[in-house]
Amino acid sequence: MSHPFFKNYGPILISEILKYLGIKIEDLKVDKEILDIKDLYSSTNADITFYHSKKYKEIAKNTKASFCITTETLKNDLPKNCNSLIVENVLVSVSKLTSKFYPESINDNFDDTAISILETKFKNKLKFGKNVLIGDNVSIGSNCYIGHNSIIEKNVNIGNNCLIGSNTIIRNTIIKENVRILDRCVIGKHGFGFFPMKNQNLRYPHIGIVIIEDNCEIGCGATIDRGSMSNTIIGKNTYLDNQVHIAHNVKIGQNSIIAGQVGIAGSSIIGSNVKIGGQAGISGHLKIGNNVEIGGGSGVVKSIPDNTKVMGYPAKNIKEFLRKNK
Amino acid sequence: MSHPFFKNYGPILISEILKYLGIKIEDLKVDKEILDIKDLYSSTNADITFYHSKKYKEIAKNTKASFCITTETLKNDLPKNCNSLIVENVLVSVSKLTSKFYPESINDNFDDTAISILETKFKNKLKFGKNVLIGDNVSIGSNCYIGHNSIIEKNVNIGNNCLIGSNTIIRNTIIKENVRILDRCVIGKHGFGFFPMKNQNLRYPHIGIVIIEDNCEIGCGATIDRGSMSNTIIGKNTYLDNQVHIAHNVKIGQNSIIAGQVGIAGSSIIGSNVKIGGQAGISGHLKIGNNVEIGGGSGVVKSIPDNTKVMGYPAKNIKEFLRKNK
Amino acid sequence: MSHPFFKNYGPILISEILKYLGIKIEDLKVDKEILDIKDLYSSTNADITFYHSKKYKEIAKNTKASFCITTETLKNDLPKNCNSLIVENVLVSVSKLTSKFYPESINDNFDDTAISILETKFKNKLKFGKNVLIGDNVSIGSNCYIGHNSIIEKNVNIGNNCLIGSNTIIRNTIIKENVRILDRCVIGKHGFGFFPMKNQNLRYPHIGIVIIEDNCEIGCGATIDRGSMSNTIIGKNTYLDNQVHIAHNVKIGQNSIIAGQVGIAGSSIIGSNVKIGGQAGISGHLKIGNNVEIGGGSGVVKSIPDNTKVMGYPAKNIKEFLRKNK
Repeated sequence: MSHPFFKNYGPILISEILKYLGIKIEDLKVDKEILDIKDLYSSTNADITFYHSKKYKEIAKNTKASFCITTETLKNDLPKNCNSLIVENVLVSVSKLTSKFYPESINDNFDDTAISILETKFKNKLKFGKNVLIGDNVSIGSNCYIGHNSIIEKNVNIGNNCLIGSNTIIRNTIIKENVRILDRCVIGKHGFGFFPMKNQNLRYPHIGIVIIEDNCEIGCGATIDRGSMSNTIIGKNTYLDNQVHIAHNVKIGQNSIIAGQVGIAGSSIIGSNVKIGGQAGISGHLKIGNNVEIGGGSGVVKSIPDNTKVMGYPAKNIKEFLRKNK
Repeated sequence: MSHPFFKNYGPILISEILKYLGIKIEDLKVDKEILDIKDLYSSTNADITFYHSKKYKEIAKNTKASFCITTETLKNDLPKNCNSLIVENVLVSVSKLTSKFYPESINDNFDDTAISILETKFKNKLKFGKNVLIGDNVSIGSNCYIGHNSIIEKNVNIGNNCLIGSNTIIRNTIIKENVRILDRCVIGKHGFGFFPMKNQNLRYPHIGIVIIEDNCEIGCGATIDRGSMSNTIIGKNTYLDNQVHIAHNVKIGQNSIIAGQVGIAGSSIIGSNVKIGGQAGISGHLKIGNNVEIGGGSGVVKSIPDNTKVMGYPAKNIKEFLRKNK
Repeated sequence: MSHPFFKNYGPILISEILKYLGIKIEDLKVDKEILDIKDLYSSTNADITFYHSKKYKEIAKNTKASFCITTETLKNDLPKNCNSLIVENVLVSVSKLTSKFYPESINDNFDDTAISILETKFKNKLKFGKNVLIGDNVSIGSNCYIGHNSIIEKNVNIGNNCLIGSNTIIRNTIIKENVRILDRCVIGKHGFGFFPMKNQNLRYPHIGIVIIEDNCEIGCGATIDRGSMSNTIIGKNTYLDNQVHIAHNVKIGQNSIIAGQVGIAGSSIIGSNVKIGGQAGISGHLKIGNNVEIGGGSGVVKSIPDNTKVMGYPAKNIKEFLRKNK
């Protein structure tokens, strides 16, 4: 499937890729065209992939990719059909190459394609406030409202019956139906993802988007970052209160309730019917099950199984928390 | 007293109310006009009220209301003069009926009555920045300032000598004198109050307002939600630092100091001369006494008596906290 | 050195200063001109200084200032060349006098000098969005971008290759080169500094500024307050995630990484190569060493030496935290 928003500048010749990454392969016989950069699992034999951690050994063994960016120590896990491209830092090289395929995912400057809604086709199609701006590649369904000073930047699809508040900024986002996004949100900007480097950090591209499913409500002042390799998703009928922060690659299930000032760090997966109390924080790369309740102010540093109530910092079973804190 | 901002669409005939709530009463003799929906205590015999919890039994026994939305198990606590209307979920029915009396309290869309201040009577009455918008039913005292891009939406009274920053949005709010509201606040939107329902939550109306008393300062990026049934109140000379969140129905006393990123959950009552350190959180429905000090980062989950210093999560007496954490 | 932004209205005659502070000195022989108000260490004999705590006794003994605002009990620590001006509350008097020297540091009203960028010299010098405003005394380097609705208020210097997002407000700030400031920030407003007074608090002037060094990134929704007597500084190549709050006088070193929703209270000094996890809070007046790692959600209430990893509330050595919380 092609990317919904960022243009893929592939195919790129493998000879060019090698040159760009500073890799020399003596015996490259055919200069193959590479269509895309993908993870080990999704790659076809027309794609290039990457393998940077033993965690993914089982998937690596079966990848269909023709080329794989990896290290000397990992290369032997790859199948015969897959040529290994040895680099020093796999993720830095992947980041560079991703920027090559998707250069438009790098730039998070203000959207200079945005113009007054009065100069667009939306002028007669929806209700809008003063000073609303609309960027390129925007679609908006019927019966929608967009508040004063809001900016629907490029690459946004909004479904029917949606309500966007005032002073809100959205880009690289798919909003389904009956969604309410209140005032002063920033949705779809890149996440806090970069390689720390002395003197000048190296930002990596964010080719993921934000998806907000039907019937959601996003409170005032939320920040929801788009994903780096995967998408950031807010499931159907999930409600976020004011000043919530959702980092890149986070996925939240359906019917969940997230109170004010909660923060969810990058790549965590939250289930359905989850309740998170105010100011709770969830570390990155965790899995929070379905029907979980997290008490206000909790700091969650481990994954939580389904049907569990936790509280505290670090968050533990709520009965234990209450017993210890009588 | 009539509502300061939301028009009461009453009186409504009791026969209409019954129909709207899907209730059948065989022996309704007179089709009475009902003026308003009020709590058990405030109702007159021209009003309808509701009774949903044994907590309120003593007040229920003495209500003057002619009709009361309640349940089969609670109805016998009501006095003879009060006809009980039996429903499955009292609060859902109350919410529906409140929307009937105050339909304008439901809609928190952007204010489409707002126009450029240059087209209003305020043009020559105060100092203002670029792109300021003013909605219907706004009054502003003398010697006031309103910053760039700010929106004084409908239903706002601002007293003398007030300072509103830039990028700030205010609605359904009474601001007294000498108040400073800094940049990027959102004040007076509905709170995070709804009935969780599978597939589509049911929002209840917020007929409360926000009141900010004399000499207050509200820091940058604050969100202060208006009340659902009662008002959200910030007492005289209370100062809020940046990025504070005040939920619906919260009441804060005088001369209190609330540091950055504090969050106060719905319906909590905070006393006077209270100091709350940065990032502290206070759960909903608590009572924090006068002269209380809450250490930065604390998570308060119980009410706190007057003249107490607490710290920790859960917050406890500060001496105990320090002893345990040497 | 003269102040980069606030005009010094000195020299002020010492007789005027005495009158203003309500001090009577019988034997004032020469009516000296005072150039500035400075701390004990920086004062020359043309300046007035202040001494309010025994902590500063050693510096007080060697001050070069001709006059010093102090108390009866502290005055004997001052050298012979320094005339003591006895007041009841040193800091309140200092605050009053600072306002006299720097009256423009008091007013944080919206910047009424700001006009559309289209009417300024910047019109052809940089890329900018719709509705950008520029105040007095602003300089901007080459290859810069300023997003929609942003306001570069008075007293801002921006270096080359900088990127300012949309809906952002900046004043009293020096931004070096290659800095990215994302959407919806408020930078350079006064801090949360005032003397609590019954009925009406007394704000003290903030004569410090904000300095953001090369290669920094400031995430969406940050608030960075300028200093009161010293400056607020973000060191080279330090990255802040979304919704971070940096209070007045805070100094952060180089190459530090500060995750979402972190708050740093007033006057704390953070080293270089520091990593602070999401939602962590740091109390005021602390010193956090170099190469420190602070776990997400931590509440830091004590200074931390170099090369230490801490976590918890109150934050302690991470090994101890993990052992206690198995």
